[in-house]
Amino acid sequence: MVKHRVLVVMAHPMLESSRVNRALLDAAQGCEGIQVHDLYTHYPEQMIDVAHEQALVDTHDILVFQHPMYWYSCPALLKSWFDSVLSYGWAYGGSANKLSEKAWVHTVSTGGSERVYQRRGYNCFSIAELLRPFEQTARLCGMRYLQPFLVQSADTLSDETLQEYAASYAAWLDGLAKGSWPPQVDSLQSEEAHYLAPADGAGAS
Amino acid sequence: MVKHRVLVVMAHPMLESSRVNRALLDAAQGCEGIQVHDLYTHYPEQMIDVAHEQALVDTHDILVFQHPMYWYSCPALLKSWFDSVLSYGWAYGGSANKLSEKAWVHTVSTGGSERVYQRRGYNCFSIAELLRPFEQTARLCGMRYLQPFLVQSADTLSDETLQEYAASYAAWLDGLAKGSWPPQVDSLQSEEAHYLAPADGAGAS
Repeated sequence: MVKHRVLVVMAHPMLESSRVNRALLDAAQGCEGIQVHDLYTHYPEQMIDVAHEQALVDTHDILVFQHPMYWYSCPALLKSWFDSVLSYGWAYGGSANKLSEKAWVHTVSTGGSERVYQRRGYNCFSIAELLRPFEQTARLCGMRYLQPFLVQSADTLSDETLQEYAASYAAWLDGLAKGSWPPQVDSLQSEEAHYLAPADGAGAS
Repeated sequence: MVKHRVLVVMAHPMLESSRVNRALLDAAQGCEGIQVHDLYTHYPEQMIDVAHEQALVDTHDILVFQHPMYWYSCPALLKSWFDSVLSYGWAYGGSANKLSEKAWVHTVSTGGSERVYQRRGYNCFSIAELLRPFEQTARLCGMRYLQPFLVQSADTLSDETLQEYAASYAAWLDGLAKGSWPPQVDSLQSEEAHYLAPADGAGAS
């Protein structure tokens, strides 16, 4: 049944005290055929083994980067992963094409609501705008950049709603593994690229 | 003569083999009244001393973040600096206002030319768009976010042109210390915020 080999690259510096990402990760770990790779646990010294990571990427089709929004981007260890693993001559440059048949997708939690991530909101920019450095990284590596799985208002979610998100996440990951794709995002084509919460759309993809 | 105490927070993981950032850093170190703080040298284990960094920030008025563009953003250790030093209750949140009278400015080198950082260029987005996560971080901390000092086409600069950039950088830093401000950037107000190379404008500010 597995069409796509899915790797969840998890990056949360305080996962033990996280409620939302812990629940999402538990859901991911319960999915058949989904490999979860928790960076902060695997690399407590924060020194990434590039050869190990590239071999792991090699054996998967879809890379899911799961993380909380930290200063409008990813936590530092995940940035370190991008800086070192996506190397010249392997991920891009010359005839490098190790990633060109793969997909890139974020699972992002934000403390703030969807409403604060817009031009007149408290955070001024949309999630699509803030994630553009990653969108362009994926583009340069020839990857498909897919609509993220967002959990917003993470600070105030009820336990019940969180469980619904976790169930949606498991279904979304299961869908990825079985061959469905979330919509591809290209914010060059659509400034207002819709980044829907899973309750609104991702569950149906 | 010094009106603004300027701290250059340097982040280049391979500074010894860097030509452009090494030349800029040498120029900065030759400026009177400019404190240079090289993160990768200071923290070889990459574990940031938050109290030390906050004390350093406390005694400066302008923070200059000097780094090469790494995957359309800053190198990982600088992201780690933002994640840990700009802490809740100190930099933002509640009545936190430790940064509210200070300015934030990037000194960024890019391998690609100015031409490739635009909608129809190879890198699709402008520097202003790619730096928005930092612009918004500065905004949330109540800081002035200033026009960066850019050195583009870094891979192909002649030695002579590089020396001109280095001299412009020294003059720019000296200007900061003596009280001049580069233009403030607000890409909410101007989608096409002009990010000029120093040869075109920063030297005159």
